[in-house]
Amino acid sequence: MKLADENLLIDDVRMRGFKQRSTVEQVLAWLDQQSVLLKSETVSLLQAAGRVLAEDISSTSNIPRFNRSMMDGYALCASDTQGASSYNPLHLRLIGKSMPGYGADLAVHPGTAVKIMTGAPLPDGANAVLPAENVELEDEHVMVLETVAEGRNIGRIGEDIQEREKIFHAGRKLRPQDIALLASIGNSTVPVQTRIKVHIVVTGNEILAVGQPPKDFQITNSNGPMLESLCQRDGAEVTFSTIIGDDAEKIEQAMLADYDLLLITGGSSVGEEDLVPLLTAKLGKLLFHGVTMRPSRSTGLGLINDKKVFLLPGNPVACLCAYDFFAGRLLRRISGQPRNWPYFTVSKILSQKITSMLGRTDYARVRLTSTDEVEPIAISGAGIISSTTRADGFILVPANSEGYAAGERLTVYLYD
Amino acid sequence: MKLADENLLIDDVRMRGFKQRSTVEQVLAWLDQQSVLLKSETVSLLQAAGRVLAEDISSTSNIPRFNRSMMDGYALCASDTQGASSYNPLHLRLIGKSMPGYGADLAVHPGTAVKIMTGAPLPDGANAVLPAENVELEDEHVMVLETVAEGRNIGRIGEDIQEREKIFHAGRKLRPQDIALLASIGNSTVPVQTRIKVHIVVTGNEILAVGQPPKDFQITNSNGPMLESLCQRDGAEVTFSTIIGDDAEKIEQAMLADYDLLLITGGSSVGEEDLVPLLTAKLGKLLFHGVTMRPSRSTGLGLINDKKVFLLPGNPVACLCAYDFFAGRLLRRISGQPRNWPYFTVSKILSQKITSMLGRTDYARVRLTSTDEVEPIAISGAGIISSTTRADGFILVPANSEGYAAGERLTVYLYD
Repeated sequence: MKLADENLLIDDVRMRGFKQRSTVEQVLAWLDQQSVLLKSETVSLLQAAGRVLAEDISSTSNIPRFNRSMMDGYALCASDTQGASSYNPLHLRLIGKSMPGYGADLAVHPGTAVKIMTGAPLPDGANAVLPAENVELEDEHVMVLETVAEGRNIGRIGEDIQEREKIFHAGRKLRPQDIALLASIGNSTVPVQTRIKVHIVVTGNEILAVGQPPKDFQITNSNGPMLESLCQRDGAEVTFSTIIGDDAEKIEQAMLADYDLLLITGGSSVGEEDLVPLLTAKLGKLLFHGVTMRPSRSTGLGLINDKKVFLLPGNPVACLCAYDFFAGRLLRRISGQPRNWPYFTVSKILSQKITSMLGRTDYARVRLTSTDEVEPIAISGAGIISSTTRADGFILVPANSEGYAAGERLTVYLYD
Repeated sequence: MKLADENLLIDDVRMRGFKQRSTVEQVLAWLDQQSVLLKSETVSLLQAAGRVLAEDISSTSNIPRFNRSMMDGYALCASDTQGASSYNPLHLRLIGKSMPGYGADLAVHPGTAVKIMTGAPLPDGANAVLPAENVELEDEHVMVLETVAEGRNIGRIGEDIQEREKIFHAGRKLRPQDIALLASIGNSTVPVQTRIKVHIVVTGNEILAVGQPPKDFQITNSNGPMLESLCQRDGAEVTFSTIIGDDAEKIEQAMLADYDLLLITGGSSVGEEDLVPLLTAKLGKLLFHGVTMRPSRSTGLGLINDKKVFLLPGNPVACLCAYDFFAGRLLRRISGQPRNWPYFTVSKILSQKITSMLGRTDYARVRLTSTDEVEPIAISGAGIISSTTRADGFILVPANSEGYAAGERLTVYLYD
């Protein structure tokens, strides 16, 4: 029977805790070896920044496509400026001007100069541009006040990008300046990886849709919209989001739908209504279930039809924490973001001790109390979402630590 | 005449450089005192993460709205567990269960217990929840194996959020967890500041629209799409983007349009075709023109109808640099982003010296050459956009430094 065979770590005694918990490091080690197969789609350059390039891109032209001036000044023969100074101005005949987009329809010969603007094509014969500030004008003559070396202030054909040069490799996360370069070589669209398609399933008979007035013992779906926001931040696209009661058949249906990645919250523990681990194991593999961390110890991770399924706790703080540790990490990597944590870090002194347990990784919300100090948020239950909205950030206590003493200097991750 | 009166810093001798340059610090000091008046709009919670709250928000209900269990276990009277251990199990009669969303339609009295799941309402009479792992079941009895203190594993009404409590102040940039909290208190929409409406005007007779095949001495608009990407990143909305030749009348029209902020590239220097500073001064005030920095020395900043107008250089590297130093900084602050620079920083050793000039701020692109070293990108002209695509990031050389020696450890800003 598939359920038993594939069911690697799941507890067989319900309501008794996890048979074998994994460490955060074990889950991360597995995750970091995973890929998510994405298709390619063509998007407008204006939509492409931050997206991941799906193919190598080579340039179809030289940039610049012509020799051009890098300054406002005078295109001339460098040798004509030899020995020039304000005490020894050398005269050249001004024979025309070269403007951006047009150029000068004439050539520079020794003894002549062409007025030229930044970006304008260099006239034939000229081999340097003397900046305007090193020149005085007198009738149709240029008085050269400085020597300029051959090649100065000229942008050469192809010096930025060479024709046929490979400019970007597949997998690059496109920066704003990459968009500029792609536009320069003539592209108006670019092939990028599709965003990861995420389904979000919030389970629980007590869960009410956003905006509905709660009655009796109902609570409003808060994990769903939070996870949607997190997925958007991390470059994924939420293509389906729903609430399902503790109903095995409907959860199975949702598990077998067409997604790249499934986030399913609630029912992830080993309680009576915690169907999600069982169903994951039934339909696929439950690879991890139970992680030695606080909060989020009921986090699980499975594969159904080779698609990753993240079992996230129903408590909102635990849900946020488990998402950011695991699901978000995968999404961020796949969408080209380089960081484990999408938060700026600062170094701060802890004003009150934080206690943890050896073997357990803790995610402790903290508040800035002065420019250099943070204090732990006292109410730290996984159900208290305001502990993450009142916090300025969090501290991680690794498994090999029993916590931190007051006065220790620590890395604080700042909520964005 | 307005042009002359308001024309604070502009050079009156064209082609000769800037009359009086400003330092980067002077421009930043001015910018950091500026605000941009934005309206409020109501958006769905699902679109609200990362947006700036336009009004204070108070809670209309307690969260939780009822006392609930924080564990899977047994709701009971704490006093009934006094002295219990695995050597001294104490028996309680199991009288029912409380499930999330429903609750138990009965009360706990001394000597009885109700099975309860995480998130389920606490039955009347119970004052603690004993975790399931501290219990053995025997017929209709619960064998209590541990003492539990009154109030343990209970989430009290309002312990997360109190009714009428102010939970967020106007001006907060909404985090994913804020969205969760707003959903919890019953909101499905939220009032946020409108995004800053930016117009982008790229000037130059030589500039061709993205995707058009360039002929002769034309070049494709690359600053426009780059700036659009940057504005998107920094929380602004580009509501208009166009290319205008060096045509004073059309530039004036664009300058008088309805925007919160105008970015205008090219024609910003003091060359013959550099109309933009003159027109800014004619229609409003040119506050700064010419900044002691490299690249981007031709950057300018003005006010037209009290709206900020950023004069950005036409060279793409200079355009990127000037945007990020000045315009982006303002956009980021107004859109609730806390950082001067939207880049992660790392500390690296410089493998080759970088020379700068006292009194000038330099923006030097660098490449990672090993895990701990960076080298400057040799081709560093402001026209060489590939210097920013080949780079991994940049180093800032402040005005009071003549550069850095090889071997110095520096802060590197990593391009995202």
